[in-house]
Amino acid sequence: MFHKVLVANRGEIALRVVRACRELGIRSVAVYSSADEDSLAVAGADEAVRIGPEHPRRSYLSIPAIMEAAALSGADAVHPGYGFLSEEPDFPEVCEKAGITFIGPPHDVLARLGDKSRARELMADCGLPLLPGTLHPLRDLGEAQRTADRIGYPLIIKAAMGGGGRGMRIARCPADLPGAFRQACADAHSFFGDGRVYAERLVQDARHVEVQVLCDAYGEVVCLGERDCTVQRRNQKLIEETPAPGLPHELVEEIRRAAVTGARAARYVGAGTFEFLVDRDRRFYFMEVNNRIQVEHPVTEVATRIDMVHEQIRVAAGERLGLGPADVAPHGAVIECRVNAEDPDRGFVPAPGRLTEFLPPGGPFVRVDTHCFPGMRISGAYDSLLAKVIVWAPTRPEAIARMRRALAEFRIDGAGVRTTVPFLLRALDHPRFRDAAHTTDFAAGLLDADR
Amino acid sequence: MFHKVLVANRGEIALRVVRACRELGIRSVAVYSSADEDSLAVAGADEAVRIGPEHPRRSYLSIPAIMEAAALSGADAVHPGYGFLSEEPDFPEVCEKAGITFIGPPHDVLARLGDKSRARELMADCGLPLLPGTLHPLRDLGEAQRTADRIGYPLIIKAAMGGGGRGMRIARCPADLPGAFRQACADAHSFFGDGRVYAERLVQDARHVEVQVLCDAYGEVVCLGERDCTVQRRNQKLIEETPAPGLPHELVEEIRRAAVTGARAARYVGAGTFEFLVDRDRRFYFMEVNNRIQVEHPVTEVATRIDMVHEQIRVAAGERLGLGPADVAPHGAVIECRVNAEDPDRGFVPAPGRLTEFLPPGGPFVRVDTHCFPGMRISGAYDSLLAKVIVWAPTRPEAIARMRRALAEFRIDGAGVRTTVPFLLRALDHPRFRDAAHTTDFAAGLLDADR
Repeated sequence: MFHKVLVANRGEIALRVVRACRELGIRSVAVYSSADEDSLAVAGADEAVRIGPEHPRRSYLSIPAIMEAAALSGADAVHPGYGFLSEEPDFPEVCEKAGITFIGPPHDVLARLGDKSRARELMADCGLPLLPGTLHPLRDLGEAQRTADRIGYPLIIKAAMGGGGRGMRIARCPADLPGAFRQACADAHSFFGDGRVYAERLVQDARHVEVQVLCDAYGEVVCLGERDCTVQRRNQKLIEETPAPGLPHELVEEIRRAAVTGARAARYVGAGTFEFLVDRDRRFYFMEVNNRIQVEHPVTEVATRIDMVHEQIRVAAGERLGLGPADVAPHGAVIECRVNAEDPDRGFVPAPGRLTEFLPPGGPFVRVDTHCFPGMRISGAYDSLLAKVIVWAPTRPEAIARMRRALAEFRIDGAGVRTTVPFLLRALDHPRFRDAAHTTDFAAGLLDADR
Repeated sequence: MFHKVLVANRGEIALRVVRACRELGIRSVAVYSSADEDSLAVAGADEAVRIGPEHPRRSYLSIPAIMEAAALSGADAVHPGYGFLSEEPDFPEVCEKAGITFIGPPHDVLARLGDKSRARELMADCGLPLLPGTLHPLRDLGEAQRTADRIGYPLIIKAAMGGGGRGMRIARCPADLPGAFRQACADAHSFFGDGRVYAERLVQDARHVEVQVLCDAYGEVVCLGERDCTVQRRNQKLIEETPAPGLPHELVEEIRRAAVTGARAARYVGAGTFEFLVDRDRRFYFMEVNNRIQVEHPVTEVATRIDMVHEQIRVAAGERLGLGPADVAPHGAVIECRVNAEDPDRGFVPAPGRLTEFLPPGGPFVRVDTHCFPGMRISGAYDSLLAKVIVWAPTRPEAIARMRRALAEFRIDGAGVRTTVPFLLRALDHPRFRDAAHTTDFAAGLLDADR
């Protein structure tokens, strides 16, 4: 097992990993920018290293700064969390060269899956259904136009190396295409340092269903069930739940099997998420693989009682999973709501500030993952996630009732601070959500209804 | 189902019941003394009624004050929580006469079990093993002395109508007996308004194992497993866990069966706890039945994923439980630690004050039940419970590691405020606890070791 793990992240996920290390008896090293000196991850870790100023490029996104902290602290492993360097293709290799284990899929797996157009090709080869689109990056606008003629409008252009719902542009008609193509290339370059993009048909009224797998280095692939993340706004997930509601059991089983097939084909190691869309005709399509722990992983943890960060660390240290189907079977209904410091009345613009009051809900079957505390300053330089509220109940209606209870008692206040709680409560109360008749355009529609 | 439930309690259990009502779509009424106006239960309830000053006798222990609030608010049911009126024998009858449902066992069950010496007799009749002692209240000191001659020393004299570990006096030798008898009678009169006492042999190095049952009005009796509450100080539980560690599986099964037999014999309805002692020779003895929700009920909720307060309310409303053995099977290891505002270095004297900082732990598989918040004034007029921290893990060593992590990150501060957290951490780290070789004298021994 590792001696010391450096946590190359901030916010709630850094605290999540620090806690896991503590529970496993592994020393942890937090890194922090000047904005995060007072963070709970820094307080909870055994050691902490300042890596730079508030700006992400000079701290959490700086490979040299992180590697220097790793060398300084003598860490023998790095956990990247999500976002920041977790999907930076060079980072695992840099760690490897420095003799530090990257807690995530090994380099060869990332090479197969990190490039999304290449991942599409691999999954098509093993029989997973894909949306019409390209299997290779688009060379130029001409190729984009020929592709569009073939697959039709609307279509979406995505960064090949993208992730986290960023670097995507929609073209609804031929006139949109040149602008969308150019912007997608620019986004891809700016967000991911790689301008390559690919195209696929856009399904606007779909269900987003993703499957969580855990794999060890000895070929064991375990499926931890699915998560429905259909409530999204601009590809940012707002509410996630399991089981995927209102879909036929056989369809969900088929999607789970497809993910396991894909994981085997990719010789996956670690925690991975296979994302799918399900259209109105209940056909499903492979979208992409997320090669890291995801924001919404607690949904699966609460349903299965598997600690996924413990398992990530164990697998990266070369241990066997040793989990049977009975060990990982999900139970009951779980819902997660992301509480963000954003103003839903003003297009979800970030609404940071200093928290004068911060009192999360508690009690039975409620889990809160948060790095916030009263008096904390929410920086506008980072993502706006304040807390994830996760509830369990025997059935979905009971889980919705419990989530309403939990969100209603959440007290958050501060000058300039607005949160998504009112929006989340409206979504939970909406008949389309309650009847599981919602699709990926649900959240935007709810906002349009206000205008 | 009920229309409106009045919560005849305060602190974390009042908040617990208010939350349950909210989740079930039932309106809730909080009652509060002048000390609790700003409480989270008051804030979370649909209505709140002030019932008197800080002194418990004139507010939470005043049946007229509670009944007036019930009439005023139009509540059709009352949840007593634990402590206060939950074991007051007249209270259910008063509710009944006012046409208000008492959420707890019906009057005839309480008549059979509320008097502990009578409960002993009933359980002896159905074959449960008892410690040597009396089956009837002791009439006078003479009878106490004759009983002592028969059962031997040390012995314990207990209030027949007692509960919550209060009203107990120990006699270690004949010279102790007159004082112990007189004090026990006086305690019983002062705490429970009924001076009757009974005697039984004292087992000092025992394990305390209790079994949780849930029963409906149609004869269904469901066993939710056991809780080990061996870590106690002066009969106040400090740490509770399930499963009972280090005991043979067959013994635990036998104790569970005894509880189910006892529940059937008492024609029990609602949530009840059968308390047993297990001696060094692994013989077990019935002690008493707790006819109410207990402080440590979350241990069972986390292990079984049954919401016991929901079930109490459903059963009281006449619904059937409808739970099979698979629905209620406990999984994994659960530990609860009670964080009290007490000073372990000064004999656990209450150490109340105003909380300047209060930041409970969170994250995976950690539940915190608390009514506290930053800025709150902890009154010295009530019990000193600040929070219950409950953790789940696949195994007991992992649960201990998780509890250490959770307690270590709990931030509590305030002028004059001391907590039991340092003591709890020491207990968790002790080899006797880790090896499950501890007995009911463990906590006292840990404290003596300091002197």
